[in-house]
Amino acid sequence: MGGDHAPQAVVAGVIEAIKEIKVHVALVGQEDLIQKELAQYEYPKDHVEVVHAPEVVGMDEPAITPIRKKKNSSITIGINLLKQDGYDAFVSAGNTGAVVAAGTINLGMLEGVDRPAIGTVIPTLKEFSFVIDVGANTEAKPAHLLQSALMAKIYAREVLGVETPTIGLLNIGEEAGKGGGLAKEAYKLMQDHLKNFIGNIEANEVFSGKANCIVCDGFVGNVLLKVSEGLLESVGKLVKREVKKSPVAMIGAGLMKMGLGNLRKLADYSEFGGAPLLGVNGVVMIGHGRSNPKAIKNAIKATVREVEHDILSAMIKELNRPDVVTAARSTNFAGGAS
Amino acid sequence: MGGDHAPQAVVAGVIEAIKEIKVHVALVGQEDLIQKELAQYEYPKDHVEVVHAPEVVGMDEPAITPIRKKKNSSITIGINLLKQDGYDAFVSAGNTGAVVAAGTINLGMLEGVDRPAIGTVIPTLKEFSFVIDVGANTEAKPAHLLQSALMAKIYAREVLGVETPTIGLLNIGEEAGKGGGLAKEAYKLMQDHLKNFIGNIEANEVFSGKANCIVCDGFVGNVLLKVSEGLLESVGKLVKREVKKSPVAMIGAGLMKMGLGNLRKLADYSEFGGAPLLGVNGVVMIGHGRSNPKAIKNAIKATVREVEHDILSAMIKELNRPDVVTAARSTNFAGGAS
Repeated sequence: MGGDHAPQAVVAGVIEAIKEIKVHVALVGQEDLIQKELAQYEYPKDHVEVVHAPEVVGMDEPAITPIRKKKNSSITIGINLLKQDGYDAFVSAGNTGAVVAAGTINLGMLEGVDRPAIGTVIPTLKEFSFVIDVGANTEAKPAHLLQSALMAKIYAREVLGVETPTIGLLNIGEEAGKGGGLAKEAYKLMQDHLKNFIGNIEANEVFSGKANCIVCDGFVGNVLLKVSEGLLESVGKLVKREVKKSPVAMIGAGLMKMGLGNLRKLADYSEFGGAPLLGVNGVVMIGHGRSNPKAIKNAIKATVREVEHDILSAMIKELNRPDVVTAARSTNFAGGAS
Repeated sequence: MGGDHAPQAVVAGVIEAIKEIKVHVALVGQEDLIQKELAQYEYPKDHVEVVHAPEVVGMDEPAITPIRKKKNSSITIGINLLKQDGYDAFVSAGNTGAVVAAGTINLGMLEGVDRPAIGTVIPTLKEFSFVIDVGANTEAKPAHLLQSALMAKIYAREVLGVETPTIGLLNIGEEAGKGGGLAKEAYKLMQDHLKNFIGNIEANEVFSGKANCIVCDGFVGNVLLKVSEGLLESVGKLVKREVKKSPVAMIGAGLMKMGLGNLRKLADYSEFGGAPLLGVNGVVMIGHGRSNPKAIKNAIKATVREVEHDILSAMIKELNRPDVVTAARSTNFAGGAS
């Protein structure tokens, strides 16, 4: 039921997914609406099941809604399926805050993780980068950033296929010692406990592809992502405006459109499907509110890779390395430094 | 001596400025180098003076350099000129951190301001917006954001000519109550003490021009600015790459270049000259390291407007309103909430 085009886009994406890969999908939501959509397609019926959830969490409702007010929402019921045998992953294009809250509270945290984090794949001049956190934990402490870095490393290796992912810390200067207390402390932790830590990454280097994984606080990551989205949109409008002004430029409009299509890929969620919610005790993927069928399909495919590579076990192992546990404990007890 | 093209670009910009407006400029730096540059121009000699400063603060040196190690640097000597009669403003395209440190320590803070803040004019789809802080105070407390907002209001009104500037708080959601502790507390303060507060602005709205002034913590503002710069650069490279690929696209290349020229204006510092350092007891303008002569000229022109409109007095008046002083005091004593 989540996203601006639900349930149409979600059902269409699921149908595409089951035709491409071997997967069983439970569609959670208002049964009549979902069945009406499904009726439009031909597909292997035994690969799709409908789980009725009478309530819907709106895109603008408070994050706590699926926990407090709408316990029969598709988010709550879908997340809770993960506690049953036979359900391995949850995908939603719905209210991000609500998915984070339901995931965190109903599934609990992975051993060794203090706070959830949302990662996002962004395309860069060299393939792509994985940015974490883009909005789950807006008041991170240094140890949370170390934990995010370790989870990102596993995700990039197992799901994105980067053999030895490099990790950078988003900061306002390149040199060690730059930034506020959070960045300074996180730098030290990452330097001491991450083999492929390549130091600070300034924001103007994010799209150059300098690091496979870029770690930051959820507030900053959210701003980074959204300003990029907004800037590309403004640039697109500006080009259109220019093209309309000049009859000569009209000739080039088609060509520009080709170019712009490539630019848009820089921020095209549908290519990567969604943003994994990491740190909770389950495989959860959050799609963009604007998700189209292709995005839903790719989100499903990404969770299948997460499950096949058993990233939860790999993360638990990494996050409970004795040196990491000790480091996390000591910085958290010191009160952090945000 | 500051910036990537000093002293050439600086001297050239100064010559342009004195030809356009009535201003007396003291060029502070290594006298022989500056005189050699000046010798290339014809200009009214009584409008330019050279003040010798033997030391230069490098672009990558620590911020504290002009205070601790290089007390005879152009930054230190230039800033200290403001304490003498006859010198009204300081412009530098040098090391930003060093200018902030020298400005803060040598000039002191304006009465009613706790921390300095750097503002920057960014072009948007509707004219421009003024973003504050973009890097001076990376660990802001709620009261600092209120102070920044009030300074931005004065700057936008007196220097940028917006009669009643609207002010937004950069946040990760539109609704009140979004964001971490800093954003939540700052929202309340701004709502209570700012007439034209229009609420939260999400980062994807920054370039749409929704608010005349956008207030944020210095870490976040720095990321916002730099990611925009980096993204436009990447987009430019991507377009070039595409154009090279296809012989047909080559035809449109010239037209695209026209379009891209307009896009680049979105992040063209030279149009606005520099970023004012606000909150210190003096008019200080920080130019981009890449400043060309046009940027230097425009930076000088902006400081002249600051001086003519006596923005320091206007800010002191605004920041010492009884309700503002009380609000700032109570939130700061509560320990802030970053």
